Amino acid sequence: VSCAKNEAGNGLQHPNLILTAQGVSLMRSSLGKVPLFDQSVEEAKQAVQSEMELGIEVPIPKDLAGGYTHERHKANYFAMQKAGVLFQITGEEKYAIYIRDMLLAYAEMWPTIGKHPAERSYARGKLFWQCLNDANWLVYTSQAYDCIYDWLDEETRIKLNKELFRPYAEYVSVENPQFFNRIHNHSTWGNAAVGMIGLVMNDEELVDWALYGLDLEVPGDFVKDNDGGAIQLEGQKEAGFLAQIDHSFSPDGYYTEGPYYQRYAMYPFLIFAQALANKKPELGILNYRNGLLTKAVYALINQTNAQGEFFPINDAQKGMSLASRELVNAVSMAYHYGGQDAGLLSIIKSQGRVPLNDSGLDAAKGVADQEVVKFPYKSIELRDGADGTEGAIGILRSKSLTLVMKYAKHGMGHGHFDRLGFLLYDEKGEVIQDYGSARWVNIEHKDGGGYLKENHSWAKETIAHNTLVVNKDSHFDGKVDEAEKSSGVPYFFSATPSVHVVSAKEPKAYKDVELQRTMAVVDIAELEHPLVIDLFSAQAPVGTRFDLPLYYKGEFMASNQQFSANNNLAPMGEESGYQHLWAESQAKLKNDLLQITWFNNQRFYTATSVIEDGDEAILTRIGANDPNFNLRRDPGLIHRRKSGNTLFASVYEIHGSYDYATERPLNLFSSISHLTVLHQSADYAAIELTLESGATYQFTFSLNDDSKASNHSISTSKGKIEWSGVYQFIKTEK
Amino acid sequence: VSCAKNEAGNGLQHPNLILTAQGVSLMRSSLGKVPLFDQSVEEAKQAVQSEMELGIEVPIPKDLAGGYTHERHKANYFAMQKAGVLFQITGEEKYAIYIRDMLLAYAEMWPTIGKHPAERSYARGKLFWQCLNDANWLVYTSQAYDCIYDWLDEETRIKLNKELFRPYAEYVSVENPQFFNRIHNHSTWGNAAVGMIGLVMNDEELVDWALYGLDLEVPGDFVKDNDGGAIQLEGQKEAGFLAQIDHSFSPDGYYTEGPYYQRYAMYPFLIFAQALANKKPELGILNYRNGLLTKAVYALINQTNAQGEFFPINDAQKGMSLASRELVNAVSMAYHYGGQDAGLLSIIKSQGRVPLNDSGLDAAKGVADQEVVKFPYKSIELRDGADGTEGAIGILRSKSLTLVMKYAKHGMGHGHFDRLGFLLYDEKGEVIQDYGSARWVNIEHKDGGGYLKENHSWAKETIAHNTLVVNKDSHFDGKVDEAEKSSGVPYFFSATPSVHVVSAKEPKAYKDVELQRTMAVVDIAELEHPLVIDLFSAQAPVGTRFDLPLYYKGEFMASNQQFSANNNLAPMGEESGYQHLWAESQAKLKNDLLQITWFNNQRFYTATSVIEDGDEAILTRIGANDPNFNLRRDPGLIHRRKSGNTLFASVYEIHGSYDYATERPLNLFSSISHLTVLHQSADYAAIELTLESGATYQFTFSLNDDSKASNHSISTSKGKIEWSGVYQFIKTEK
Ligand SMILES: [Ca+2]
Ligand SMILES: [Ca+2]
Ligand SMILES: [Ca+2]
Ligand SMILES: [Mg+2]
Ligand SMILES: [Mg+2]
Ligand SMILES: [Mg+2]
Ligand SMILES: [Mg+2]
Repeated sequence: VSCAKNEAGNGLQHPNLILTAQGVSLMRSSLGKVPLFDQSVEEAKQAVQSEMELGIEVPIPKDLAGGYTHERHKANYFAMQKAGVLFQITGEEKYAIYIRDMLLAYAEMWPTIGKHPAERSYARGKLFWQCLNDANWLVYTSQAYDCIYDWLDEETRIKLNKELFRPYAEYVSVENPQFFNRIHNHSTWGNAAVGMIGLVMNDEELVDWALYGLDLEVPGDFVKDNDGGAIQLEGQKEAGFLAQIDHSFSPDGYYTEGPYYQRYAMYPFLIFAQALANKKPELGILNYRNGLLTKAVYALINQTNAQGEFFPINDAQKGMSLASRELVNAVSMAYHYGGQDAGLLSIIKSQGRVPLNDSGLDAAKGVADQEVVKFPYKSIELRDGADGTEGAIGILRSKSLTLVMKYAKHGMGHGHFDRLGFLLYDEKGEVIQDYGSARWVNIEHKDGGGYLKENHSWAKETIAHNTLVVNKDSHFDGKVDEAEKSSGVPYFFSATPSVHVVSAKEPKAYKDVELQRTMAVVDIAELEHPLVIDLFSAQAPVGTRFDLPLYYKGEFMASNQQFSANNNLAPMGEESGYQHLWAESQAKLKNDLLQITWFNNQRFYTATSVIEDGDEAILTRIGANDPNFNLRRDPGLIHRRKSGNTLFASVYEIHGSYDYATERPLNLFSSISHLTVLHQSADYAAIELTLESGATYQFTFSLNDDSKASNHSISTSKGKIEWSGVYQFIKTEK
Repeated sequence: VSCAKNEAGNGLQHPNLILTAQGVSLMRSSLGKVPLFDQSVEEAKQAVQSEMELGIEVPIPKDLAGGYTHERHKANYFAMQKAGVLFQITGEEKYAIYIRDMLLAYAEMWPTIGKHPAERSYARGKLFWQCLNDANWLVYTSQAYDCIYDWLDEETRIKLNKELFRPYAEYVSVENPQFFNRIHNHSTWGNAAVGMIGLVMNDEELVDWALYGLDLEVPGDFVKDNDGGAIQLEGQKEAGFLAQIDHSFSPDGYYTEGPYYQRYAMYPFLIFAQALANKKPELGILNYRNGLLTKAVYALINQTNAQGEFFPINDAQKGMSLASRELVNAVSMAYHYGGQDAGLLSIIKSQGRVPLNDSGLDAAKGVADQEVVKFPYKSIELRDGADGTEGAIGILRSKSLTLVMKYAKHGMGHGHFDRLGFLLYDEKGEVIQDYGSARWVNIEHKDGGGYLKENHSWAKETIAHNTLVVNKDSHFDGKVDEAEKSSGVPYFFSATPSVHVVSAKEPKAYKDVELQRTMAVVDIAELEHPLVIDLFSAQAPVGTRFDLPLYYKGEFMASNQQFSANNNLAPMGEESGYQHLWAESQAKLKNDLLQITWFNNQRFYTATSVIEDGDEAILTRIGANDPNFNLRRDPGLIHRRKSGNTLFASVYEIHGSYDYATERPLNLFSSISHLTVLHQSADYAAIELTLESGATYQFTFSLNDDSKASNHSISTSKGKIEWSGVYQFIKTEK
């Protein structure tokens, strides 16, 4: 059995795209010595074996995602990529033969097929319903092709280059510039696909297109993609892979579409970057923008909960996580190329597999040889915008609690109207949830697995988020174009061991309304878990109607208020998402506080909010106007107020436990006995908090002067309070 | 440090109730050698240590379950029981002193308090709101007392006997015969409590009361308990512990109230039995009724799902499981006294702790020394009724699937109107759920942790169950007394490796209506999981309205029928549970089949039912008329038919998978292409099932002749079908 008969005339020996001759030789000598790598090789062998047993299946394209032809072509490219690596590692020719025969079958079919019959994409593919998936195919298949390139006879190689790969690359680029020439995750895949096959075939024209974009106008009839995203960004002058890196990421590695799409986008970014590092070292791609691609991997890791699942901001299916194949590749690569950070090893270990390349081998060796310490998650602000000046997301972590507040850019076509919205997790999962997207990805029952219409009518709307809705309308009137013109405005971010604070402003979401939300996670000796303080201030005309929703996760237990339930349910409105909400029960709020306690994951949770005269509360349920049961029947609480300038002041507690086998509840009541607004104005917000124990705490915050040196003084019902710096959190009694 | 100063005049040396001198000596010599036992000792030490640090707290009784005084007295008896064992095992006097001081504090308080101030129980306790909890206290405290009995000076012993224990025992017996003299789990606790303290004090009168009941009439004003259960069973002539064993269990060890209450009841049965075995071996209690108490433990184990959670039939909080302290005691005891069955060791191992007595030591040694094999769960019918002739529950197990059908007695005050209802599990959890009880046990937010009014108005009603509702009313018109007069009628139960069948009749739940349900779990080569066949036949007058609900667990994915959703929701009725259901959507059924697919736990499930002309389907949601949010918002499907004699024929499939990290669905569609009723009559039901592959299966069943020898012949649209025996399941094509 032989491999790598080098007949190429290009001066470099294949494989040299992702695998290298030197790397392959190290892999071979390491076999049997590095458990995680061996295990990944074994899994790849089994996966390829069962595909090979099926034989070569290259069906005429017909189905959408989830359907047979779609899933078959997808399985083919995964199998080919793995087979290529196995050919190199084991030298067994059966793998090369499998790839060759598969590619010849594709080469035979390619000229015979036109565009995919499904017409729903702005950029229809040929093998798949959208070019995006065709590009996926090419990114993986290029790697397989590289692995057998030198093994193939020249005639076959010339045939494949000419009849399959060059036309394929042209299809996803010059024939679909509305797909290829965007600044968008779709195009990153397109760029990587064309660039990688160009590198394999030594086709410099393709590599140039990939790196720098096409010198082509996108035809005027392509203006938006299927998600309402603009094809051409305002003022966009560049395209191609380098422009993607420039425009897609902030200097902190944040990706404006959010972590779900960043996860998806990372694979082509990183795999093409690896190929460029191998074949065009002079480009210095891994140092580009101060090593931005590695930073982006860290940004992704920081955007996960305790289960390693990404925060579902913007369009995002919940459950996508560090376990995905994209992150398996990304984290090992960040380890290998980013200085072998031992903090990454705990993630690699929990992933339980490594990519079969130099990075994967290095990572597997790290897991085997080093002490695996937990990744040091900490409070962090990730700026948005190419130069880091367009908003951010703030992540507060204290003990087992994670809070995320979003005041970033809109997030393009996949953005949600969720400025100043927040999500809260404990180590068991969601406490206050974002709905995520209304979509069951790839599940054919649900409109072919694509975005459901409720994604627009519900999931993106402001009322679907834990943020303030003004006059029953979504931010920016629900218009992406308007939302894209500005971002949230970071105001303050700080983390000490016991007090973590984020504050941001949103001046443009509503006309004549200034919003600012300040959230603090404070560690209080008397409480089991850190406490969340939420101060949402609005400067608005008198008579403004505010709805502040709270999508708590779990079963409603009790409230201190008298709710009156509805015996007939009607949708709460006709638009802006209200049409999807049932009002199950409501209360005209009495006394000083609104308090509700819920139960989830064998724990209790309580939200306590200060009431103003005339406030109402509504207990809601998602599911109205949902004929196909596309939405989860999740509960919510809306705090409603009619007012001018105002402050919504709340605290959220995690407390107690319940065990089904002992049936013993612990600490099932709130520890908060009083919550008072001491001061509210355009410049300051101040609250006082008293526990059942009598212990009292004050949190005071300067809304407009963020100087650390400034001295502040406010008058309150408790007398004058003075402090210096942006905030003060102190214990005033017991 | 010394223990066991034997000053007793009764000829036997303490401890001799649950611990014995011989057992204690073996425990001491085993310390450090049996990991699970050592670990349980260590846990007990820590638990007692933290209680001892709190000091002696014996508050004046005031609160309900979940409240301070209730939980304090409960913690006290657990701590004393453990401290007693630790005193014996370690010889450390601090444990004895702790118990003595605690008991003296109780002795001081006892004469000063009257009945507990809460008035909600038919049998108010003194320390607790109900005698039941007072009896719990005494069952545990007797054990502690036994452990220090010989250590105490005589004066203290005489004081405690006279001023605390004898009056206490009288209170829960002669002063509350409506509590003590029933055949009911409450009374089992009462009997054990009085008997155990009698054994400790050598008070034969108390032991007699405990074993044989009181020779006392229950006052005529006590007729029902708080749950509507009768105080005196019809024709009840006996009371006391032996009568409890006679009447509470069937010969198969099934307990008519169901496993949730059986679990609760087992502790006093087994702990008192252990005490009797030690002190009154002449009674042969462990051989009583052919070793019934051990059989009862096996019956409990057989009534669990893959997570070890009990089937929530009747009033039962979901999640109660083999992990409970009652089962920790019970399983070890069954191991020790029942012949050291190695099958039990897997359960003991997963419990992770053992009781600190002879049984626990033996079980821990078993786990340490033997190969731990999985408990051999298999299909089993557990008969109900003292002589096994009053109905049964049928449990079908095939691979990872578990089906339970209930055709037992009503279950007394905690019974549900659920004749012929079923539950379905796979290894991940619930597939078709029973609601369980409407109660949050001990959670004070929810009406003090007791039964909620929705337990009566919803959870017990027939429409809350997966069984046939006739003319919108519950079985027996929702009347416990009527339901108690008869049981379901077992017709056929059979299990081969690939076909498991249960069939039962219910002739009395509705006037002029005969119901029979036949369920089969069949292993079909073409399918991933066993398939469930459900044939529900009814002989009823023309014009009868049938509703057959299916409480599927998960998210609705799709249906082959056109449902039309309601934009306003109204309760589906005014009584019998319908008042708690919203109709979210409905369909007039077209064509041959009703099919719905749902998704849960990363799997797909499909129910396929044969349609008759005029059938309707309603997609429901629990939650109407639920002002305090006491009910879960769970979905259901109601198949509605107006007809005379009829057959509801369905199959339930478990199929495919979905992974959030790969977003790849597998086998997400049903494999059933046709389902046809070949024959329906008073005597036979026959269906044919065709898979997408073309493979065809027939299931034919004789409804009235259960002889294995009979030959049957029916005419169908497919010609004559003949078979012998009760059923035939065959492949007829491909
Ligand atoms: Ca508007
Ligand atoms: Ca709008
Ligand atoms: Ca009724
Ligand atoms: Mg898009
Ligand atoms: Mg969102
Ligand atoms: Mg009862
Ligand atoms: Mg029930």
